[in-house]
Amino acid sequence: MKALVYNGQHGKELVEKPKPSLLKPTDAIIRITKTTICGTDLHILGGDVPAVTAGRTLGHEGVGIVEEVGSAVNNFKPGDRVLISCITSCGKCDNCKKSLYAHCEDGGWILGHLIDGTQAEYVRIPHADNSLYHIPEGVDEEALVMLSDILPTGFEIGVLSGQVKPGDTVAIVGGGPVGLAALLTAQFYSPAEIIMIDLDDNRLEVAQKFGATKVVNSSDGKAVEKILELTGNKGVDVAIEAVGIPATFALCQEIIAAGGHIANVGVHGKSVELHLEKLWIRNVTITTGLVSTNSTPMLLNTVKSGKLKPEQLVTHRFSFDQIEQAYDVFKNAAKNKALKVIISND
Amino acid sequence: MKALVYNGQHGKELVEKPKPSLLKPTDAIIRITKTTICGTDLHILGGDVPAVTAGRTLGHEGVGIVEEVGSAVNNFKPGDRVLISCITSCGKCDNCKKSLYAHCEDGGWILGHLIDGTQAEYVRIPHADNSLYHIPEGVDEEALVMLSDILPTGFEIGVLSGQVKPGDTVAIVGGGPVGLAALLTAQFYSPAEIIMIDLDDNRLEVAQKFGATKVVNSSDGKAVEKILELTGNKGVDVAIEAVGIPATFALCQEIIAAGGHIANVGVHGKSVELHLEKLWIRNVTITTGLVSTNSTPMLLNTVKSGKLKPEQLVTHRFSFDQIEQAYDVFKNAAKNKALKVIISND
Repeated sequence: MKALVYNGQHGKELVEKPKPSLLKPTDAIIRITKTTICGTDLHILGGDVPAVTAGRTLGHEGVGIVEEVGSAVNNFKPGDRVLISCITSCGKCDNCKKSLYAHCEDGGWILGHLIDGTQAEYVRIPHADNSLYHIPEGVDEEALVMLSDILPTGFEIGVLSGQVKPGDTVAIVGGGPVGLAALLTAQFYSPAEIIMIDLDDNRLEVAQKFGATKVVNSSDGKAVEKILELTGNKGVDVAIEAVGIPATFALCQEIIAAGGHIANVGVHGKSVELHLEKLWIRNVTITTGLVSTNSTPMLLNTVKSGKLKPEQLVTHRFSFDQIEQAYDVFKNAAKNKALKVIISND
Repeated sequence: MKALVYNGQHGKELVEKPKPSLLKPTDAIIRITKTTICGTDLHILGGDVPAVTAGRTLGHEGVGIVEEVGSAVNNFKPGDRVLISCITSCGKCDNCKKSLYAHCEDGGWILGHLIDGTQAEYVRIPHADNSLYHIPEGVDEEALVMLSDILPTGFEIGVLSGQVKPGDTVAIVGGGPVGLAALLTAQFYSPAEIIMIDLDDNRLEVAQKFGATKVVNSSDGKAVEKILELTGNKGVDVAIEAVGIPATFALCQEIIAAGGHIANVGVHGKSVELHLEKLWIRNVTITTGLVSTNSTPMLLNTVKSGKLKPEQLVTHRFSFDQIEQAYDVFKNAAKNKALKVIISND
């Protein structure tokens, strides 16, 4: 089969490799029909994730059709259309029992990381009963690719960890796909204001279409003043950090109201300065996390009911043969006005 | 009346000054019968709290007898024995309506800070109906002085913010009065283990008497290894920081389990390094805060029922005339094996 692999020299290669086979009774083999590219894949290509070794098939998002299941798989059978979660979970370790699937003792984020991923014609999914979801009738498959990772990430690590409530003022720092996923799902809880902050006017325009009530272009270095002015100098109830650099985390610390929540979603490569000399007295809560995807059933219901329209995040479409071109477009997202790209294997 | 005031040159002075009088209909005047000294008072004397001006009466803890009330005070009358909360709260601003009395728009921590405090024969308490509590019959007054600040601080900002649960492994970094208050109140929630970490063997011995199941002397620089060993390399579910320096906050980051809570109680004078490059993926929650004392009625019930015995924290007793001597003992707490000192005005 064809697969896009990490070549071990900070690059990628489209190669032929053997189709995966069942290794354990709890495994399933899925024929991938649609996949996508994540910012994390770019981090891997940049050499930032040293656990990824040469020859590893990339990708942790996708939908497909069950090809084969192990003898212990009960919920799925060949021919079933499935959504693949970016998180593999056994469902029975201490962390899984707390719904903390991100830290499953026999799983977590392993796809396209520690085992071969979804940017291929076929993928092996361990603990299939816990790591796959049936695709409901009539739901758009492209929309569901967004539910493998970015929508549960924005929702669980941004909105739920940030405890967005009716009437809140919410700031989202970073209007990339995950920031927009937080924007879409924050609206479930009827905040009064959602302020999107980004450097790129195109992204801010998209954010307004997606429901941001205010936008702030932070390229002039005056984001703090602007946001304090918008909030009567009180600051925001919830600040969602969806970038992953020290400057954006610093911004969140400066705009958070007393009693507020900073939800860090960004993947950070460096430590940051935490201003406890100011924040110790402010009754703030800071959360971090990798998605557990335990909200996937809830999100599937919101897609079925039409409350959530994840297909809005898809801007570009490619066939699997064009996957390298898809990477080029995604890598230069701002220039290409790209959000998420769909790669089809149909 | 006699009052201990900040002299503006980083020192204190026992002076004669006029007895306070009612300024607003919601005020009460209290004759102080017992007060104490807080680590914060030492910070003020060190010049760390520049908002405190020369001549300000120190102190924000105490019990006393109502001398006089304003026309709008309904819950208290002259002669009532009362507990004074360290936090003054109007009960009607947006923050008070969220029980965030620490950030009351017409109060918060003002006693012995922005208005004259409790280390005097009399004190004026604004918003008396919300900032005083009746002393139940038969309850030891010394015990209740501990409820002005340190017990609600350890409980609300340590135990409640840290979300201590049955079966949890809890680490408390710092065995001073507030760390011990967290230790006493963490036991309400039946954690499996409470590990106290301190540099001083005497404090660790006290912690064991107060219910710590394990103690770690961190003076050898091996606290992280010891705690990871005690937890089977998983780390602790809750880490309560009760010191307020970068090293102790760093320790909390190294010992926290995936999905764990770091509750910062310490008053920090400097920023700290937050290792988001490690923690972004660990699903941790970090909380900060000044006490709101909204848990005071709950704590009063636990004292009445005998579940909480705050009098254990009192190690030294002085008359008001000896208050400077009380400061000397408290300042050299480790040498004097001192926890909290009681200063009586009876």
